[in-house]
Amino acid sequence: MTLEELKNTKFDVPDKRLLEFIPLLVKMPLQEVAEILYQRDALFVLEVLNHFKIDEAAKIISELSIAQQIELFKNSSKKKFALFFEVMASDVRADIFQHLTQKEQADLLPYLTKQVKKDVIHLSNYPPETAGGIMKSDYPILKPHYTVEESLNLLRNEYAHNEYMNYTYIVNDQLELIGYVLLQDVALAEPQLSIQQIMKQCVGVAKVDDDQEDAVKKIEKYDLFTLPVLNKHNQLVGIITQDQAIDVLRLEQTEDMEKFMGMTRDSSDENYLETSVWSHFKKRVVWIVSLAVVGLISGLIIHSYESTLDQLLILALYMPMVADTGGNCGSQAATVVIRAMALGQFRLKNWFLVIWKESRISLLLAICLGFIAFGKVMFLSWETETPEEYSLAIIAFVIALALSLQTITATVIGAALPLTVKAFGGDPAVAASPAITTTVDITGLLIYFTVATSFFNL
Amino acid sequence: MTLEELKNTKFDVPDKRLLEFIPLLVKMPLQEVAEILYQRDALFVLEVLNHFKIDEAAKIISELSIAQQIELFKNSSKKKFALFFEVMASDVRADIFQHLTQKEQADLLPYLTKQVKKDVIHLSNYPPETAGGIMKSDYPILKPHYTVEESLNLLRNEYAHNEYMNYTYIVNDQLELIGYVLLQDVALAEPQLSIQQIMKQCVGVAKVDDDQEDAVKKIEKYDLFTLPVLNKHNQLVGIITQDQAIDVLRLEQTEDMEKFMGMTRDSSDENYLETSVWSHFKKRVVWIVSLAVVGLISGLIIHSYESTLDQLLILALYMPMVADTGGNCGSQAATVVIRAMALGQFRLKNWFLVIWKESRISLLLAICLGFIAFGKVMFLSWETETPEEYSLAIIAFVIALALSLQTITATVIGAALPLTVKAFGGDPAVAASPAITTTVDITGLLIYFTVATSFFNL
Repeated sequence: MTLEELKNTKFDVPDKRLLEFIPLLVKMPLQEVAEILYQRDALFVLEVLNHFKIDEAAKIISELSIAQQIELFKNSSKKKFALFFEVMASDVRADIFQHLTQKEQADLLPYLTKQVKKDVIHLSNYPPETAGGIMKSDYPILKPHYTVEESLNLLRNEYAHNEYMNYTYIVNDQLELIGYVLLQDVALAEPQLSIQQIMKQCVGVAKVDDDQEDAVKKIEKYDLFTLPVLNKHNQLVGIITQDQAIDVLRLEQTEDMEKFMGMTRDSSDENYLETSVWSHFKKRVVWIVSLAVVGLISGLIIHSYESTLDQLLILALYMPMVADTGGNCGSQAATVVIRAMALGQFRLKNWFLVIWKESRISLLLAICLGFIAFGKVMFLSWETETPEEYSLAIIAFVIALALSLQTITATVIGAALPLTVKAFGGDPAVAASPAITTTVDITGLLIYFTVATSFFNL
Repeated sequence: MTLEELKNTKFDVPDKRLLEFIPLLVKMPLQEVAEILYQRDALFVLEVLNHFKIDEAAKIISELSIAQQIELFKNSSKKKFALFFEVMASDVRADIFQHLTQKEQADLLPYLTKQVKKDVIHLSNYPPETAGGIMKSDYPILKPHYTVEESLNLLRNEYAHNEYMNYTYIVNDQLELIGYVLLQDVALAEPQLSIQQIMKQCVGVAKVDDDQEDAVKKIEKYDLFTLPVLNKHNQLVGIITQDQAIDVLRLEQTEDMEKFMGMTRDSSDENYLETSVWSHFKKRVVWIVSLAVVGLISGLIIHSYESTLDQLLILALYMPMVADTGGNCGSQAATVVIRAMALGQFRLKNWFLVIWKESRISLLLAICLGFIAFGKVMFLSWETETPEEYSLAIIAFVIALALSLQTITATVIGAALPLTVKAFGGDPAVAASPAITTTVDITGLLIYFTVATSFFNL
């Protein structure tokens, strides 16, 4: 049985087949066990976890979704869960704690050791999505007057299995951050040197209430293994690690796409299937309805040219084509500009270079699309009755001209909108595609009818 | 002068003001110096770099864009550039080397030491965007029979400033990967133990020709500091680090958005401003033209109902509204589903749960939008002449009903398209928004005219 098959097998509780798999599971990397247990029934998961050591089981639980972690909490004795809790990474357990009800928190607290209790309450005070909300508190610290030998002994005796000693922070007696040492510098230095003599200055630090994405940007910019987090007194209160930066980036990866499509989000780790239809609806209806309301403007424009359309019905038939083309060109330009900004490929003060480039690109696109539009009208409408005074070719030319002008306008607007949002300090990705489509619908109709009425005597 | 002002100041070459800033620059973190030099003239950058030590200058160059790195190469003597090249991180210099012309490569090679020459040629053989293409080759290795004491001495003497010794890989005499040791385990172990006794099994490995994104997923899944890269003989040939994973994820961050907007991309590090108008155009025209051609189908549908529209012009006026609503709902549903898949929130075999959820959400949206559409028609068209046999209210009801049905259809299609692409092994993000808009335009028109003609006697 392959891993893929195992993942897709449905087990009942209790299931005899499970006993066959236990010896297989306990030999697997814990992350793969977590993958197999992902979104399975809590009682089943708890039964499997019984076959692992407490610290292994705690690691497996850490890899599951928050909803599943809460389910496990609800289905196990608080005393048992407290055992896992004690050995979990500090950031994970603070996250779970934050998601429990007050009653559940009160049920769990008596089973925790004093130190863990204090740590959990401290960490869960910070809002999620801030540096404080994701930081860890289980890392070693050293004092500047320690010798290298003392430091190594301390690390060996008190932090033997700590994962974050590669970068050890140095604090003074007021717990203020004053530097860091690399483990390799400590391990390879003369034993009688003091930490002060080998420590280095920290280049990047975060404040507890910084946005988590800003913290990640610092890790990225300075290539840090860990980023120290300070409170308002400049005391070291936590660290953020590179693997947390990766998690935050993974969440951000498709977040811009959501913003671009005009989705408002309340929490970054909402699970699609676990979220109710009603919450999904609330999240989505705002934009869709706003757009429908703004669409009134297009409606008003169309109605003000009602008599024109009545006289020359063929114009009505090509309104959707002009609208679609504008929307496609505008959204495409916006996407390119947003991506270039996300990757830091130009500075805002160079906005005119961007607009100039987009203008030239749109000219090329306009020529192509104009020819296609002309061909389309000639092909689709060859049987359509037109007024005597205008040949079909003239009408096709006018429609193609309007569409070309709309292509240029829509592309430039599409590029300009994210630049404008950024200039006012916003996130360019909120210059959402539907907003652009709706905006260029309006310009498109205005261009279309203006061109048409000035060519024809309507 | 703040950092922001410094960044925005234009310097000429040579510029006397620069001399004032040099003492300031040399005290800054190198990444910030790089930010100030970003996209400045090559001669100016080289002048500033003269004030830094060779290894510092090399680090600053590493942080610049590839286009700027090539400019620096072109503007400096090959002998001088070779000095920087020698001390650069192995992955960065291989990347630069790959971007040089054959002639430029030949000019540079004579100035390199034998070992760097070999390393650069080796690394630049792997295609970019593969594990081999981004891996580094400057990391320590140990043999299993070394004692802890020998190992520490080796690390101290030969790799003192190496950044990757926290995770040191163990290879046998055939250079096959057999495990790794954490620096902390070596530093804190009894000196006479052998490496074999303290080494651990590697959980994740990459092959040289794996996709870089798969390599990053392994780093993410197993929370690795570094991922070992093996050739087809299972020999260790490189490592990929967490900060490289962060870079790859940053590139991916808005990539899905580009795919979703139907942009084809040839290379992940193309710079917006440095790419020519013609390349931008080629990258963008394919989709825009394909969509215009597929739009022919909508045109054909509209034309086949031309006589209907002629009899009841009011129907023509609301075609754009139905099309826009469908596009918005479909794209929104697709965005949500793509994001949930990117975050691994459901398995493909649960597709029916997704469709079922989207159907219910779309029903709620349809009710809202239906009411709005009814109100819109009553408001916008109160002066419009309608045939005697149908009151405006009846017409508004029919249009609202068609729009509601279109809302449901478009939402379900929008959710189903990325699921389908994924089921066929593709990247769900290519179920692009313009493709969805074009598809639901067609369904929208069919629904609209079918509903209208069955209610009215046309």
